[in-house]
Amino acid sequence: MARALRERGLHGVGLTEVLADAGAPKGVLYHHFPGGKTELATAAIAAVTEAMVLRLQALLAAGADPVGALTRWVGEAERQLVRSRFTAGCPLATVALETTPDDPALRQALDTAFARIRSTVADVLAATGIPSARAQMLAGLVLAAYEGGLLQARVAQDGAVLQSVLQGLVRLIESEMPGRSPAGPHALAAPDAS
Amino acid sequence: MARALRERGLHGVGLTEVLADAGAPKGVLYHHFPGGKTELATAAIAAVTEAMVLRLQALLAAGADPVGALTRWVGEAERQLVRSRFTAGCPLATVALETTPDDPALRQALDTAFARIRSTVADVLAATGIPSARAQMLAGLVLAAYEGGLLQARVAQDGAVLQSVLQGLVRLIESEMPGRSPAGPHALAAPDAS
Repeated sequence: MARALRERGLHGVGLTEVLADAGAPKGVLYHHFPGGKTELATAAIAAVTEAMVLRLQALLAAGADPVGALTRWVGEAERQLVRSRFTAGCPLATVALETTPDDPALRQALDTAFARIRSTVADVLAATGIPSARAQMLAGLVLAAYEGGLLQARVAQDGAVLQSVLQGLVRLIESEMPGRSPAGPHALAAPDAS
Repeated sequence: MARALRERGLHGVGLTEVLADAGAPKGVLYHHFPGGKTELATAAIAAVTEAMVLRLQALLAAGADPVGALTRWVGEAERQLVRSRFTAGCPLATVALETTPDDPALRQALDTAFARIRSTVADVLAATGIPSARAQMLAGLVLAAYEGGLLQARVAQDGAVLQSVLQGLVRLIESEMPGRSPAGPHALAAPDAS
């Protein structure tokens, strides 16, 4: 479901297709998600968000410094986009741009999702010594630039735009860190072997 | 057409509806756009882009300093989103997230559109004295954060996320300007009367 949302958005996804992808009969879906597609999408949004948050936390726990963890996290999203031949952007963004005020449940789920990611990024930034209020402001900018950079890379069919955006973010974050000069050591992490 | 794309994206827009909006019979459309919906969307993308670029240039020509012009330009997009009850985000972003590698004409049109806006923003930033290469990098970040901030404000049904993103951008730009301290005088422009 997350893959289908990522590539084509909610309106482009039929329930039958989701079920075929999952190898499940329709009765199973309505047993677990009596609210149908909206409820399934809401669950998928929550699952995607948790995966993003856990990945960032895992990079930190694995010993990356905060800026290195953020850099690697954005770099992984870029490589996923490239490997998918520019179909796999952020599923949250795709669904967000489809919603209208007539989709209150989906908008609420997405707003909660974005707030959770912003809060996680803010915690990472605060770990560098940036004061909490500044870290929250910067986290909003990081997430916005991440979403907008993925979107531009997708239509450009080239990750360069996102890499440039990431360099700008790293420079900004490092300029905000106590006792650091703006010209820090971080650049886009080298592609991993996965 | 631009309004329809902005609110619901390409897949959500029927040709019949576009024609009703424009008060035009179907023969007129195919006379002017023999390529149908894709050609019409490509023309709409170009028109939206020109309007965005011209508006930014007009703000500069009207005497705003470069950072003030950018601030006002983003602020106007935020007010348009709020006034539309959070339906009118950026039409370019909405269409961008719908495209696949099977839509080469649309992707090309969008990539050209984003490059044109980045180039215009880079010119504005260069007018502050920021060196050209830095101005281009910052322009990519400004456009990415603008798109991502609009998207988050849309689902939050609250412009605060975009305002916070804009404050972060202004702080970054001012820190890059020759002879300026990061704590500059700019904040989100007050709502205009339009």
